[in-house]
Amino acid sequence: MALRLSTLFLRTLREDPVDAEVDSHKLLLRAGYIRRAAPGIYTWLPLGLRVLRKVEAIVREEMDAMGAQEVHFPALLPKEPYEITNRWLEYGDGIFRLQDRKGADYLLAPTHEEMFTLLVKDLYSSYKDLPLSIYQIQNKYRDEARPRAGLLRGREFIMKDSYSFDIDDAGLDASYMAHRGAYLRIFERLGLEVIPVAATAGAMGGSKSEEFLHPMAIGEDTFVRSAGGYAANVEAVTTVVPDDIDFSNAPAAVVRDTPDTPTIETLVAAANELAPRAEGPWTAADTLKNVVLAIDLPTGERQIVIIGVPGDRAVDFKRIEANIGAHLSVGGEVGVEAASEADLKKHGGLIKGYMGPGLSLDAAVLGAEASTKLLYLVDPRVVSGTSWITGANIDGKHVFGLVAGRDFTWDGTIEAVEVREGDPAPDGSGPLEAARGIEMGHIFALGRKYADALGLKVLDRNGKLATVTMGSYGIGVTRAVAALAESNHDDKGLVWPAAVAPAHVHVVAVGRGEEIFEAAAQLTADLEEAGLEVIYDDRPKVSPGVKFGDAELLGVPTILAVGRGLVDGVVEIKNRATGVAVDVPVAEAVQYILDQR
Amino acid sequence: MALRLSTLFLRTLREDPVDAEVDSHKLLLRAGYIRRAAPGIYTWLPLGLRVLRKVEAIVREEMDAMGAQEVHFPALLPKEPYEITNRWLEYGDGIFRLQDRKGADYLLAPTHEEMFTLLVKDLYSSYKDLPLSIYQIQNKYRDEARPRAGLLRGREFIMKDSYSFDIDDAGLDASYMAHRGAYLRIFERLGLEVIPVAATAGAMGGSKSEEFLHPMAIGEDTFVRSAGGYAANVEAVTTVVPDDIDFSNAPAAVVRDTPDTPTIETLVAAANELAPRAEGPWTAADTLKNVVLAIDLPTGERQIVIIGVPGDRAVDFKRIEANIGAHLSVGGEVGVEAASEADLKKHGGLIKGYMGPGLSLDAAVLGAEASTKLLYLVDPRVVSGTSWITGANIDGKHVFGLVAGRDFTWDGTIEAVEVREGDPAPDGSGPLEAARGIEMGHIFALGRKYADALGLKVLDRNGKLATVTMGSYGIGVTRAVAALAESNHDDKGLVWPAAVAPAHVHVVAVGRGEEIFEAAAQLTADLEEAGLEVIYDDRPKVSPGVKFGDAELLGVPTILAVGRGLVDGVVEIKNRATGVAVDVPVAEAVQYILDQR
Repeated sequence: MALRLSTLFLRTLREDPVDAEVDSHKLLLRAGYIRRAAPGIYTWLPLGLRVLRKVEAIVREEMDAMGAQEVHFPALLPKEPYEITNRWLEYGDGIFRLQDRKGADYLLAPTHEEMFTLLVKDLYSSYKDLPLSIYQIQNKYRDEARPRAGLLRGREFIMKDSYSFDIDDAGLDASYMAHRGAYLRIFERLGLEVIPVAATAGAMGGSKSEEFLHPMAIGEDTFVRSAGGYAANVEAVTTVVPDDIDFSNAPAAVVRDTPDTPTIETLVAAANELAPRAEGPWTAADTLKNVVLAIDLPTGERQIVIIGVPGDRAVDFKRIEANIGAHLSVGGEVGVEAASEADLKKHGGLIKGYMGPGLSLDAAVLGAEASTKLLYLVDPRVVSGTSWITGANIDGKHVFGLVAGRDFTWDGTIEAVEVREGDPAPDGSGPLEAARGIEMGHIFALGRKYADALGLKVLDRNGKLATVTMGSYGIGVTRAVAALAESNHDDKGLVWPAAVAPAHVHVVAVGRGEEIFEAAAQLTADLEEAGLEVIYDDRPKVSPGVKFGDAELLGVPTILAVGRGLVDGVVEIKNRATGVAVDVPVAEAVQYILDQR
Repeated sequence: MALRLSTLFLRTLREDPVDAEVDSHKLLLRAGYIRRAAPGIYTWLPLGLRVLRKVEAIVREEMDAMGAQEVHFPALLPKEPYEITNRWLEYGDGIFRLQDRKGADYLLAPTHEEMFTLLVKDLYSSYKDLPLSIYQIQNKYRDEARPRAGLLRGREFIMKDSYSFDIDDAGLDASYMAHRGAYLRIFERLGLEVIPVAATAGAMGGSKSEEFLHPMAIGEDTFVRSAGGYAANVEAVTTVVPDDIDFSNAPAAVVRDTPDTPTIETLVAAANELAPRAEGPWTAADTLKNVVLAIDLPTGERQIVIIGVPGDRAVDFKRIEANIGAHLSVGGEVGVEAASEADLKKHGGLIKGYMGPGLSLDAAVLGAEASTKLLYLVDPRVVSGTSWITGANIDGKHVFGLVAGRDFTWDGTIEAVEVREGDPAPDGSGPLEAARGIEMGHIFALGRKYADALGLKVLDRNGKLATVTMGSYGIGVTRAVAALAESNHDDKGLVWPAAVAPAHVHVVAVGRGEEIFEAAAQLTADLEEAGLEVIYDDRPKVSPGVKFGDAELLGVPTILAVGRGLVDGVVEIKNRATGVAVDVPVAEAVQYILDQR
């Protein structure tokens, strides 16, 4: 049945709402698709709900087509499974927790790995039952610190999450690739450009992970790509590691007085004055900067870590956060920041501006309180044989020609510094360039982390119990609606791709003549008869200007205006996206629209 | 695409699960339709989800057909609107409350009157926008004290809730009746017998209310009906009020010594001994029993109320709970129980076993602490001129011939006693009989309670602001699935009505021959080609007994078995409900099934 604007529960707004930041948010509010119920929590009005359901239907069709089976979990879940995997703790403030009348702990699920794992454990017991992919399209909850940009980052939102279960790694790989293919088809059908980028697994754990980023200037995710086809989340970019250097003939390190050189800039200037180099002046890249970091662990503890990086590269805290997990005893999301004065004071041997590698770990040099061994990690460019100007751990002194692997060692390497445009892609496909995007989907080859924790084992071909290997795959359905709006609008309003538009045709009756409304109603009926969904603006006393304005704002792909041309037997058919309008004989209008699709 | 049992995410259970109480719960678990995630919180497996979606679709179609428009609200809502209407408090322990990371209060909505009211206030401003009916099919949350019977009373469940908005009472009446009609069509299409019964509005407030009860022996709701068509929730049954009696010639009341008569039974015996009556012996119906009740208010306070009822009728606490609201200063759900010894002690004048009307309110008789005026309510049968034997408020004494309206007064009447089979229906349609049922839907003519509280006013025809009048209408979608299972099963399993069955045909390949599987696969394809949904049991190594057992358990309306008969060119088609099986030539099987529908 056509949506008639005389009765449709809709009110369009002329002005941008004050609390809306980005275009999609403004337009979805103005066009009456959504309303805000609380920060990051939205109500879907009739038109918005139609778009949402169309996105869901495309997702569902492709998931079904790849053989995944739909189930539906509660959003309100008991604490226990999340305690077993430690995520009850690891999520920190990021989830909503509550208690029932008996004082039992519950959460509003941010994602359902635990429950899916337990469900498969409940139902299945043999490798013959596998592979299995099951999914749901369901409300998720995250207590975002800064819900923003309307539907782009909400606190209650709809996600499609699926999970694959396989007996071995080859199976997981096949399930992962099947999801990857389905995702690419989904986004293509939605008309939403995405770039699959290598990502880090973060709190999810697992071996392999890709994000599907929709390029968007206001996107929160920075990623890099090469002309040769490499693309990665900045957190996931790996540095091209140089070869080790033979240091057998390297001169011995020399400690020099370098007063008043607490920064890399002042140090480089002093080095060029004190010990000029034949091959050309010292640069920041010749210095090794030792940065003291404070890591806030999910347990509430604060751990001090020192990182040695080339002096010409800024530290990237997000990259550190994404990569430091492997070096810590505790899993989960961590907060990383520069150590405070208080942190430094607690570890008395850490002399700001003159910190050196190795030495900083020497209990003899450190105050008694700080004599615990501190973790020392270096940038991957610090390979054996590289020679550095760096702090001597003595106020006012630096050491020159300190050779990695000869004069100092480290506990591990970490991707800790900024990725720059022009850096080489790790796969040799050329220099990297930066772009911004928003995460539309994320796929994880989880491996056995959850199955191990929750005891999901099945009998294998040899009758022995084997732990199942899993994948986890998500698409932000709510976010897809916002991203589609963000990438499909102009200054007049929304411009929906046909696949998700709330209707196919927006019929406007322009003028007051009875014959105009009769003709418009008849065309509406004919279009519906032909299988098209129609919005019909049948409001009797609304001006043509307002009607056309609303039609542009609502963003249905085709606008059919019945007005003055009717006396000449024509109606106007306008393509919302191109703005091109043509007069078409009334009798041919339906066929014309069908042909354009 | 057919659901193939070789890959369907399903495991049937031979034994009843230990924690399942009622048949629908046992069978939905055994047949792999649902699994329990927490008390009163369930996961839908593929087959269950299909049934659920079919129920939803029928509800949606009928709501759309009556012109209601679908929207979708969040489940996580801010406290403030519910504080304005006082329901934040009134719900007591019955809702889930939580806080976000900033300490702001939220609830998981049990129902959405407040939000719908505010949304209409946001969008609409004129009577021209009305009438409006909007609805959603959405997750609801109630922290039930005793979640029971599987899906019949859950803590997370799906409800269709709709709300009507009208400018005047006639409009509300029309919207109410339109919903009533739609509900009857929905239940008819679902194949779910319902009886609309008059109900009390309870915590919802409002003037008129009906429940749609599905008759069911295990139902929690007792209702009564007459052969003449009257039906009401027991809480809502009204007493046929006798006419007033002229008391001008009634003899004066006499106080008599009645030691050791603390019960109605002992009192009646004593009365017949002390003052035998010419018209026949005194009975319990001649005595007035004064019952002291303690009301636990939503505010946490405890209020004492005294109720005078004929001595032959037991007090019905549920009826009191449903009806006492009008007499209290505070709204919301209340708990009613007999006053404890401590309560009585606090009000020293209340002498157990000898309590009388009126006197009990006399501050001079009561102890100082209890000299506040206590509310005194009577059963509707206590009309002016009726004469009673009742307590004298003196230990060991009763008063005979105490005349209502002459010797004592009351603050109001209340439906406080049991309804008995044989009582007259209030509409004169004959004696009442009792039945049990479960509430499948509930409709309320709310009136202006919520619009008043939240300021929903629109301009009326005269350009003046008028408060909108509302209705609220709910259907338990999850519960409908359970009720359908409860009322459609036999000792072998589920027997779904066609409209909601997870598939139309269950094809079973019986035996091991390749030709059997080929024929079964071909029939599956042909049935699908004909527009039918098919479950195909293609499991290669499962015995015929297990396959037939599963088919009966799953409950699809038609079972098509391809087996030994194939050599003779026939397959067996069995009606799951009637158990009737016929052999049909393979080539005619599809048409035969289509004809049976």
